[in-house]
Amino acid sequence: MPYRAPVGDIRFLMDHVVGFAQVTQTHRFADATPDMTQAILSEAARMTEDILAPLNRIGDTHPAYLDNGVVRTSPGFADGYAAIAEGGWIGMSAAPENGGLGLPMTLTNAVNEMIAAACLSLQLSPLMTQGQIEALEHHASDEIKALYIPKLISGEWNGTMNLTEPQAGSDVGALRTKAEPLGNGTYAITGQKIYISWADNDFTQNVCHLVLARLPDGVKGTKGISLFMVPKLIPDADGTPGQKNDLRVVSLEHKMGLHGSPTAVMEYSGAKGWLVGEAHCGMAAMFTMMNNARLGVGTQGVGVAEAALQHAVAYAVERKQGKASGSGAIIEHADVRRMLTSMKADTFAARGITMMNAVAIDMAAATNDPVWQARAAFLTPISKAFGSDVGCEVSTTGIQVHGGMGFIEETGAAQYARDVRVTAIYEGTNGIQALDLVARKLMDGGDAAFNLLEEIEGFAEQAKTTLPVLAETVWQSAETLRETTEWLIAQDDLDHRFAGAVPYLRAFARVLGGYIHLKSALTGDAARQRLATFYIKRMLPEHADLLAHVRQGADDLMAITAEDLAA
Amino acid sequence: MPYRAPVGDIRFLMDHVVGFAQVTQTHRFADATPDMTQAILSEAARMTEDILAPLNRIGDTHPAYLDNGVVRTSPGFADGYAAIAEGGWIGMSAAPENGGLGLPMTLTNAVNEMIAAACLSLQLSPLMTQGQIEALEHHASDEIKALYIPKLISGEWNGTMNLTEPQAGSDVGALRTKAEPLGNGTYAITGQKIYISWADNDFTQNVCHLVLARLPDGVKGTKGISLFMVPKLIPDADGTPGQKNDLRVVSLEHKMGLHGSPTAVMEYSGAKGWLVGEAHCGMAAMFTMMNNARLGVGTQGVGVAEAALQHAVAYAVERKQGKASGSGAIIEHADVRRMLTSMKADTFAARGITMMNAVAIDMAAATNDPVWQARAAFLTPISKAFGSDVGCEVSTTGIQVHGGMGFIEETGAAQYARDVRVTAIYEGTNGIQALDLVARKLMDGGDAAFNLLEEIEGFAEQAKTTLPVLAETVWQSAETLRETTEWLIAQDDLDHRFAGAVPYLRAFARVLGGYIHLKSALTGDAARQRLATFYIKRMLPEHADLLAHVRQGADDLMAITAEDLAA
Repeated sequence: MPYRAPVGDIRFLMDHVVGFAQVTQTHRFADATPDMTQAILSEAARMTEDILAPLNRIGDTHPAYLDNGVVRTSPGFADGYAAIAEGGWIGMSAAPENGGLGLPMTLTNAVNEMIAAACLSLQLSPLMTQGQIEALEHHASDEIKALYIPKLISGEWNGTMNLTEPQAGSDVGALRTKAEPLGNGTYAITGQKIYISWADNDFTQNVCHLVLARLPDGVKGTKGISLFMVPKLIPDADGTPGQKNDLRVVSLEHKMGLHGSPTAVMEYSGAKGWLVGEAHCGMAAMFTMMNNARLGVGTQGVGVAEAALQHAVAYAVERKQGKASGSGAIIEHADVRRMLTSMKADTFAARGITMMNAVAIDMAAATNDPVWQARAAFLTPISKAFGSDVGCEVSTTGIQVHGGMGFIEETGAAQYARDVRVTAIYEGTNGIQALDLVARKLMDGGDAAFNLLEEIEGFAEQAKTTLPVLAETVWQSAETLRETTEWLIAQDDLDHRFAGAVPYLRAFARVLGGYIHLKSALTGDAARQRLATFYIKRMLPEHADLLAHVRQGADDLMAITAEDLAA
Repeated sequence: MPYRAPVGDIRFLMDHVVGFAQVTQTHRFADATPDMTQAILSEAARMTEDILAPLNRIGDTHPAYLDNGVVRTSPGFADGYAAIAEGGWIGMSAAPENGGLGLPMTLTNAVNEMIAAACLSLQLSPLMTQGQIEALEHHASDEIKALYIPKLISGEWNGTMNLTEPQAGSDVGALRTKAEPLGNGTYAITGQKIYISWADNDFTQNVCHLVLARLPDGVKGTKGISLFMVPKLIPDADGTPGQKNDLRVVSLEHKMGLHGSPTAVMEYSGAKGWLVGEAHCGMAAMFTMMNNARLGVGTQGVGVAEAALQHAVAYAVERKQGKASGSGAIIEHADVRRMLTSMKADTFAARGITMMNAVAIDMAAATNDPVWQARAAFLTPISKAFGSDVGCEVSTTGIQVHGGMGFIEETGAAQYARDVRVTAIYEGTNGIQALDLVARKLMDGGDAAFNLLEEIEGFAEQAKTTLPVLAETVWQSAETLRETTEWLIAQDDLDHRFAGAVPYLRAFARVLGGYIHLKSALTGDAARQRLATFYIKRMLPEHADLLAHVRQGADDLMAITAEDLAA
C-alpha cells in the first residue's frame, strides 16, 4: 500500500490550529510565505511517496551489516539518502550564514514526519545530522562551524551523537570515556560508546561523531563532561577528508526493528577530537542537540502512526469478511471502525502537539521571548513521549486491524510496530521524559503549564456557544489537569512527582489533544467535527483516571519492595 | 535470566481466590487431592524451568523451516516435545476411558501456563492437540476415538485445527474447502487452508488435521460446514501410520514472532478424511475445540506476561543507573517500580481470571449445572482477550524497563512481545471475543454477567469491615459495570453493543481483577495487600472511562465514513 504524505492535515493544522501564521509574521521567518510552504510540502511529499517509501520494506529485509569493519547499508538507501541531501532537506532550518535555508522548524518538522513515515530507518540519519548542526551552531568555534556545517548540510558528511556507554545510559554522568589534551588544541578520545545510530555507512564521505567525554580535570557526574567533534576521517583545512582517525565500529546490534539503521558499538582508541563549546560544558551543548532530537523522535512516532493508519485503512477497505453492510468490507464493522478512528484521532492529536511544539521553538528563536522558550521546553518531553507512544499504539492497533495478516511480515504492518518501538526508548526513555516534565519543567512554579492551560480554558470558554458539549468537556479536562498540576507542584518530595510522572505526561497530552481537536472542530468542517467528537467523548476521558493515579503519590508504590516484585 | 514457575501464586489463587476446593470436592475430580496438586505443579515447574525454558531463544533464532516439503523444527524442540509428552502433560484432562488422566482443567491450565511461559512456540503444539482431543471426545465416533485419542495423548501423534482460508478468517462460514463422499464412509477433502499451526514437524509419527469443509449438500454459511479428521499418514486398523495422504505443506509463514512454531499454508488435494460428528454440524464440534483453545490462548498471554515480568525484575535488580537509593539498582526508581508493579498486578489479575474460568469449566463438567456452564462460557472470551492483551502490554512494558537493551534481540525481552502478539489475534481476534461477549454471551438476558457481579458485590460488601477503602472501590466498580451491562442489554440495535464491545470486555476484566485482588488482600498477606492496593487504586479506575465509552453507543462512530478515515 503506497504512502501518501498528509499534506492536507499538516496545512490544516498550520492554518487553523497551531498558529503558524505567527511564525511567518516574524522578521526571521518572513520568507516562509504560504506559497513557499505549499511548495516545500508538495515537493517533500513527492520525494517521500515516490523515492523513500519503496525503501522501507527493503531496509527491514536487507539490514545494514558490518563487512570487514565497514558498514554496508540496505539496497537503495544510498539513493534515498542522496534524494534527501540533494533536496536540501537536511539543512532546512540551519542558519543561512553556514549554508542553511533558515526556514522555520515547523516546516522542517513537517518534512521530517513525512520522511520518517516513508522510511524511518533511513530518516534517523538526517535527523541526527540536524541535531548536530544545531549543536555546532550554538556551541562550536567559528573554525569548526565553517569546516563542518556546510558539509553536514549538503549531506556529504553525516553526524552522530555519542552519549551512551554500557554503564551510562539514562545516567549520562556515569560515563568513562576520556579526553586527553594533545597540546595543539586537539584531544585524544578513548573509550567505548554504544547505541550509536548511523555510526558508519557507505554513502557519505565522512562521519562526524559528537562525543561526550571527560577531561583529566573533569569532576565526576554531568558537570565534568565535555563535548568533542571526532571525525571518522580527519579533514584538512579546506575540508577534504584525509587521514583515518583512531576509531572503529566494533559491531552492529541485532535489533527488534529499524534494521535499515546501523546501530553500532564504537571504539575510540586515542582518536583525535576537537572541543565543542567550553570545557566541562558538554551537557549543555548535548542538550541543544537532544532537545531538537526529542521533538524529532516524537515526530518519528507521528510519521509511523500515519503510515500504519493508512496501511490499515487500505486493508480494511479491501478486505471483505462477514456480513458487513455497505461495501461489505471490514471497515463497515463497528469494532474495526472504532480501531481505525482511534488511530486517526490520536495521530492527529499527536501531530498537533509536535507542531505546537515546533511553532513554540520558532517563536522562541524569532523573539527570544522567555515565555515562548518555556513553552517550547515544556512541550518537548510531551511531544517526544506522546508522539512515540502514539506511534507504538497506533501501529499495534494497525496489526490488529489486519487480523492474522498483521502477524505475517510481508504485510508490512508488523514492521511499523517493530521499528517504532525504539522511539519510546531512545533520546531519553519516555519515563525520563516524564521525570523531566514533572521536575525540571515545573521548576518555574508551573508557569509554562498554567499558561498553556489558561489558553485552553479560554479557548474552550469561547467555543461553548458553538459546540457546548465538546467545549465543556475540554474545559473540564483542563481544569482537572490544572488542579492536579497544583497538587504536583506542592509536593516537595520528588518521589511523589516521579511516581505519577508518566500518567501525568499522558494526561497533559490527552488534554492538549482535546484542545487541538476542539479547534479543529470549530472550523465547521463536518468530517473533522466527527473525528473530534470521537476523540473528546471517547478518548479524552482517559485523563481523569490518569490524574487520579497521579494524585495517589508515591507512598503506596514505594512501600512495594523489590522482594514483593521478585516473589 | 532463568524462568521460575510461579507455583506459589498458582497455589495461592487455587486456595484463596478461585475456589479450587469446590472442584476437588466433586466426585469427578476427587483424585485431585492437595498432595496430587502439589506434585503435579512441582513436576511441571521442574520440566518447564530445566528443559523447556532454555529452548525459547533457540526457537526464535533458529526458526522452523520447510525442507523439500518436510518441516524441520528448531534444535532441541524434539526433546522438549518428548518431555511434555512423556510427562503425560498432553492428556491431563482427557477422559480416562481413552487413556487420559481425567484431571481438572484448572490443573491443566496451570501447567499450560508454565509451558507457555517457558517456550510459547513449542507449547502451541500440545495446546492444539488438547483441543482436538476434547473435540473428538465430544463428537467423534467410537472408532475414531479409539484410534486417535490414545496416540494424541501419548504425543506420538499431534493435532491441528484447520479453519481459516484466504477469504474466510473471522467469517468461517465463507470457507470453500470441499468434502466429497467416497461411498465407503470416507470423504475426499479438497481445498487450501492457511495459518495452520504445527501443521507438520519432524518429531511426531503422524499429524492429525481436523478440517472444516463443506459437503456437496452443505448450505452456504456456517450451517453447511462439517468437520473431518484428515491424517497426514492414513493409519491402519491397529493404529500404525501407513500410506501418505493427499495433503501437503505448501509454505511456512514468515511471522513477527513465534518463529519456533511452523505456521503453514496447507493444500488438500482429495485427501482422505473421516467425518467427525454429524454432517453439517462441524461448527459445533469446532467450537468445542475453540472454547478450550480460547482459554488456552488467554493462558498463553498470562504465561508470557509472567516470563516477561520475571525477566524485567531480574534486569531492574541488577542494573545500576542514576542516584537510586537503597541498592542503587533501577528498581529503586519510582517510575521503574510503577512499571514493574503494574506488570505484576495485571499478570496476577489475568491469571486469576483464567483460573476462575477453568474452575467454572471443571464445575460444569462435574455437575452439568447450566449456571456453571453459562459462567464458563461467559468467562471464556474475557480470559482469551484480557489474558492475551495483558501478555502484550506486560511484555512491551518489559521492553521499556530494559531501556535500550530492550530493543536488542539478544536480551530476549523483545521476543516476548513479538511472540505473544499473535495471541490477541488467533483463535478469534480479541475484537471477535468482545463481539461474542456482548452478543451471544448476553443472550441469556445477562444472567451469567449479573451472577458474577452479585458475587463480587456480595463479597465486597462483606470485605468492607476489614478493608473499607479497597472493598468500597471494588463494590462501586461492579455497580457501574452492572448499570452499563443493563444499558447494553437494552440495546436492540447490535451496533450499539458492538461499538463498545472491546472496552466493555476490558472493563469486565478490570472489575474481575479488582475482585481477585480484593480476595487476595483479605487473606492478610502484607505483600499481596500492597499489590492489591496498587491495582485497586491505580489500575481499576480505568473501568470508568471504558464504560463511559461503551455508553456512547454507535451513532457517533458509525457516522464516521470510510472516506473520513482515508482522507
